[in-house]
Amino acid sequence: MTDAVPTIIDCDPGVDDAIAILMALGNRSMIDLRAITCVAGNVPLSRTSANARRVLDLAGCTDVPVFDGCAHPIMTPEGRTSSAHGSDGLGGVDLPEPVTTIQPEHAIDAINRIARDTPGGIVLCPIGPMTNVALALLRYPDLKEHIRQIVLMGGACFGPGNITPFAEFNFHVDPHAAQIVMNSGIPIMLFGLDVTRQALLNRSFSLDLAASDNLFYQTVGQMLGAYESRDPCLHDPCVIAWLIDPSLFQSVAAHVEITLGKDDAAGQSVARTSAKHLGERHPNCECVTHVDAVGLETLLKRSLEQLVQSGVGRPD
Amino acid sequence: MTDAVPTIIDCDPGVDDAIAILMALGNRSMIDLRAITCVAGNVPLSRTSANARRVLDLAGCTDVPVFDGCAHPIMTPEGRTSSAHGSDGLGGVDLPEPVTTIQPEHAIDAINRIARDTPGGIVLCPIGPMTNVALALLRYPDLKEHIRQIVLMGGACFGPGNITPFAEFNFHVDPHAAQIVMNSGIPIMLFGLDVTRQALLNRSFSLDLAASDNLFYQTVGQMLGAYESRDPCLHDPCVIAWLIDPSLFQSVAAHVEITLGKDDAAGQSVARTSAKHLGERHPNCECVTHVDAVGLETLLKRSLEQLVQSGVGRPD
Amino acid sequence: MTDAVPTIIDCDPGVDDAIAILMALGNRSMIDLRAITCVAGNVPLSRTSANARRVLDLAGCTDVPVFDGCAHPIMTPEGRTSSAHGSDGLGGVDLPEPVTTIQPEHAIDAINRIARDTPGGIVLCPIGPMTNVALALLRYPDLKEHIRQIVLMGGACFGPGNITPFAEFNFHVDPHAAQIVMNSGIPIMLFGLDVTRQALLNRSFSLDLAASDNLFYQTVGQMLGAYESRDPCLHDPCVIAWLIDPSLFQSVAAHVEITLGKDDAAGQSVARTSAKHLGERHPNCECVTHVDAVGLETLLKRSLEQLVQSGVGRPD
Amino acid sequence: MTDAVPTIIDCDPGVDDAIAILMALGNRSMIDLRAITCVAGNVPLSRTSANARRVLDLAGCTDVPVFDGCAHPIMTPEGRTSSAHGSDGLGGVDLPEPVTTIQPEHAIDAINRIARDTPGGIVLCPIGPMTNVALALLRYPDLKEHIRQIVLMGGACFGPGNITPFAEFNFHVDPHAAQIVMNSGIPIMLFGLDVTRQALLNRSFSLDLAASDNLFYQTVGQMLGAYESRDPCLHDPCVIAWLIDPSLFQSVAAHVEITLGKDDAAGQSVARTSAKHLGERHPNCECVTHVDAVGLETLLKRSLEQLVQSGVGRPD
Repeated sequence: MTDAVPTIIDCDPGVDDAIAILMALGNRSMIDLRAITCVAGNVPLSRTSANARRVLDLAGCTDVPVFDGCAHPIMTPEGRTSSAHGSDGLGGVDLPEPVTTIQPEHAIDAINRIARDTPGGIVLCPIGPMTNVALALLRYPDLKEHIRQIVLMGGACFGPGNITPFAEFNFHVDPHAAQIVMNSGIPIMLFGLDVTRQALLNRSFSLDLAASDNLFYQTVGQMLGAYESRDPCLHDPCVIAWLIDPSLFQSVAAHVEITLGKDDAAGQSVARTSAKHLGERHPNCECVTHVDAVGLETLLKRSLEQLVQSGVGRPD
Repeated sequence: MTDAVPTIIDCDPGVDDAIAILMALGNRSMIDLRAITCVAGNVPLSRTSANARRVLDLAGCTDVPVFDGCAHPIMTPEGRTSSAHGSDGLGGVDLPEPVTTIQPEHAIDAINRIARDTPGGIVLCPIGPMTNVALALLRYPDLKEHIRQIVLMGGACFGPGNITPFAEFNFHVDPHAAQIVMNSGIPIMLFGLDVTRQALLNRSFSLDLAASDNLFYQTVGQMLGAYESRDPCLHDPCVIAWLIDPSLFQSVAAHVEITLGKDDAAGQSVARTSAKHLGERHPNCECVTHVDAVGLETLLKRSLEQLVQSGVGRPD
Repeated sequence: MTDAVPTIIDCDPGVDDAIAILMALGNRSMIDLRAITCVAGNVPLSRTSANARRVLDLAGCTDVPVFDGCAHPIMTPEGRTSSAHGSDGLGGVDLPEPVTTIQPEHAIDAINRIARDTPGGIVLCPIGPMTNVALALLRYPDLKEHIRQIVLMGGACFGPGNITPFAEFNFHVDPHAAQIVMNSGIPIMLFGLDVTRQALLNRSFSLDLAASDNLFYQTVGQMLGAYESRDPCLHDPCVIAWLIDPSLFQSVAAHVEITLGKDDAAGQSVARTSAKHLGERHPNCECVTHVDAVGLETLLKRSLEQLVQSGVGRPD
Repeated sequence: MTDAVPTIIDCDPGVDDAIAILMALGNRSMIDLRAITCVAGNVPLSRTSANARRVLDLAGCTDVPVFDGCAHPIMTPEGRTSSAHGSDGLGGVDLPEPVTTIQPEHAIDAINRIARDTPGGIVLCPIGPMTNVALALLRYPDLKEHIRQIVLMGGACFGPGNITPFAEFNFHVDPHAAQIVMNSGIPIMLFGLDVTRQALLNRSFSLDLAASDNLFYQTVGQMLGAYESRDPCLHDPCVIAWLIDPSLFQSVAAHVEITLGKDDAAGQSVARTSAKHLGERHPNCECVTHVDAVGLETLLKRSLEQLVQSGVGRPD
């Protein structure tokens, strides 16, 4: 695993988070998944934490440590959840209680410790609200020197949002955390709705999986099928796909600013790319604009196959 | 002219305003142009007023009355101009001082009087900042009963702005006026950057005109050529084209809300179209989303031809 | 009346507006009341207009022309009223329908015409929301050259508001109009809650009036009594008192800025007086900070007496 | 020390912070000072940390552990300092480098550990920006159960600010932290400019100290003298004085809301106290409104005397 990228996924599973985790687990020669850290988002923290571990169990990867982080956004104790993933967050699939245990360390301390212990630093992949990452950066001001890159799902820079007409879910839920991350000075690849709206699967994809004899495929197929009926876009897997094959994507250097506040505009992300609009500002991210959706589907298929080939989903 | 639509164009010429006016003048059997009212915008009021009359002179239509309106936006005495039209507002073409005179009546009084005197009311086409229209609605609360429809150029509902990353020029210059118009309850066709960014001419269009023997064509060709190098989109002519041939366009019912304030977000126009985003709101406009750009070019060409066929641009 | 100050009162009666009008009418050798213009505020426009005329009838001054202005604020068609004046706006006193008629001219046109016809210009006294004044300034950009001074009731510069914890009623109802007035460049005396909260009458004042044999005194006493139970401050009369005897007041040069928006902070008025806080700004008003409340009561008493001495309130 | 209140002072010394610390140290039978935690504010963190320790050295109380916290506010990496305390933060007094050492633990971890180890919890006294306290509450969600009360200096609820016309320094520097603290649900005594503007010393107070033979008195006198010339108010000592003698103060139950954002209004604190303004809200603090300034001066004098009586300031 010498060349695998040391990576932490910070997430709020969520079906598309689950698919992103599975994609990472199917490519462990490329992605050295050091930890999964959980945050409140699509569903409450207790549920995202359980779901992350159910997904690891499903993939037979109980060696990946899981840490609980923040149970609510920086400025809004009441939080906000999404209905796109079902009340359990995984589309209602029948998965047993997790075997993988929760680590006692807080997510922000774990991120700091692992990053600091990794020569060259880690790649951090936040695919839920940015609360954990922001709080880690506030608590450990020099942590940024130990993060190679942040590859995140959030925002909608050149078009409308989803949770509101202004804003995408992850950034809307914790706009202050998003702003802290965008202003951190760490190199950022930003996967917003601009690109993830293009990340569509053929309908047959989930149907074929669900019809398989393999239990793992069946479960993934059911999860995807339930999710597709509410949101057809594979938002979070784009982040992992880019780690594996960046040639699937196109991006543009941009300065992205987050609208703060409490109303529908909270979490709006507006990109400045032209000299006229940038003015004195400098780009603070690469804003991803296009994906080869067919290539992404192929990559996902191959990733799941690699898990199955390693023995996942077969009757014991 | 019995079937022609009684119309007032409220504008800030501006090259694309000039083209819009010419398109209207080339189709007087369909558009009964009752007045042109001027507002500060692309260039200061004294200049937009002169330019409107220079365009009428150019087209030999000195019978259309021109009225001066507001010299600055509602909340910002300092105003704001655009560099896309050159310092004279008409791309530096060599046009003589206007022969057409300015009417003594204020634009808002003229709009009110003409609308009230027109059975069935007028169609009002604001293609500059909305200041005159908003002030007319404030001063004459029942004017709205005498306006059949507002067909306006402004906003950017589903993508980035131009003058700032948030906002389109007309709405940014006077966001309060834009909001007053959008909330007026009058039926509105909204032509924002969503559609006008598609309104592109072949480069040969202006070159062919400039190479013509006809003086009118030459002038229009030079104006368009100077403008294209800064902004290739025929924003304002879309409004007039729709009056002539609505089949060139597609639209969606939307509730459009304007961001007020003083910063870059001022004048942002965000559309709600889905039931989820509309909530308790009702659509307040038809937001135009697509144009047949080839059809638009053909229509513009024919409109200019009709003016030339009526004798415009020939040596005396 | 050669030395009397040519004055227009722009108001939304309202009990304290009524008292202010009566104070002006009791001092016609000093205040040449050229017009009363009405605006929506404490009660809707139809009611403020009727109340202004009922007050003129009460004082036997049916020669003062009354004009209707704006029925709602610039940005908020729904408006906002106050409960402090009772549903009729005059504390429930039994006054007949007005004999004084309404003039056909719109208030903003009347203000402009009268100001322009007055050598040296007028003093304008807005004691309701600033909508009429702002709209007049927008419609007639050079009107400001014909207004000597604006003496207004509005704002709360150094302490809490009344209608919200941030804002005073007049400014909250139409913050945009207030900002337009404050930015007009016209010399402004600003009477906010800072001073009008000190404008208290002895309780015996209204009781004594109500117990009088004179019908006029009785009516004024009842009006004041009903109002005092809800708001003990004579806000609007401060404006007129200052015209008559400025020595009753103290003020400080200030730059006052209005908070726009739609929430509780709308209409907040914050004063900058120190060099540190002013920065590059220049004072845009004299912000009145103190009143001699006993002197004010004496002046009011004398003003009412002068009306009675001229025959008001006696049986025919 | 059985009845002394277990207390942590979170501060940014600052002259008035230094006086507050000395007042606490002079009353150790009442105030069991468990820790001093430092935050960026009046001067940068490295300086506030050094100053806290210089003050402990000065008072001969090197047993109190000092912890460093946050070097910048939650949303603004650039921070903001005050000029009122001189460039060294202690009015230019000649104090040696600190002997008291800095503890290795981060302030937010120390606050959490100490609070949790204290039966009944601690009293937390933030007298600088609220950054440390807010971050501690975010990182340790159940910390609030171990804080008896927060007694803080911040805000200006019923009058103008100081650093801007809207806002007091501590709240302006980190408005988001202030809002997190106000919304924490912990019982809060809020000492804003409303009361601390009354906390004035007689000019002779610092002169008398400076003229003393005692080195400690001399230093305190010089510090106070330098500070008084820029800001005559003993803001922070009010917090400690209340712990010792609450009878010196009067307060009112209030809901205090913080204005977020980046402009001059950031950190504005507006109090709702009446049923009309509270609406559905509940009071979230006791907002202190009055102080017996003479009593406060007496208490300060006695506190310093108690330190001197214990041997402080005498030649070795």
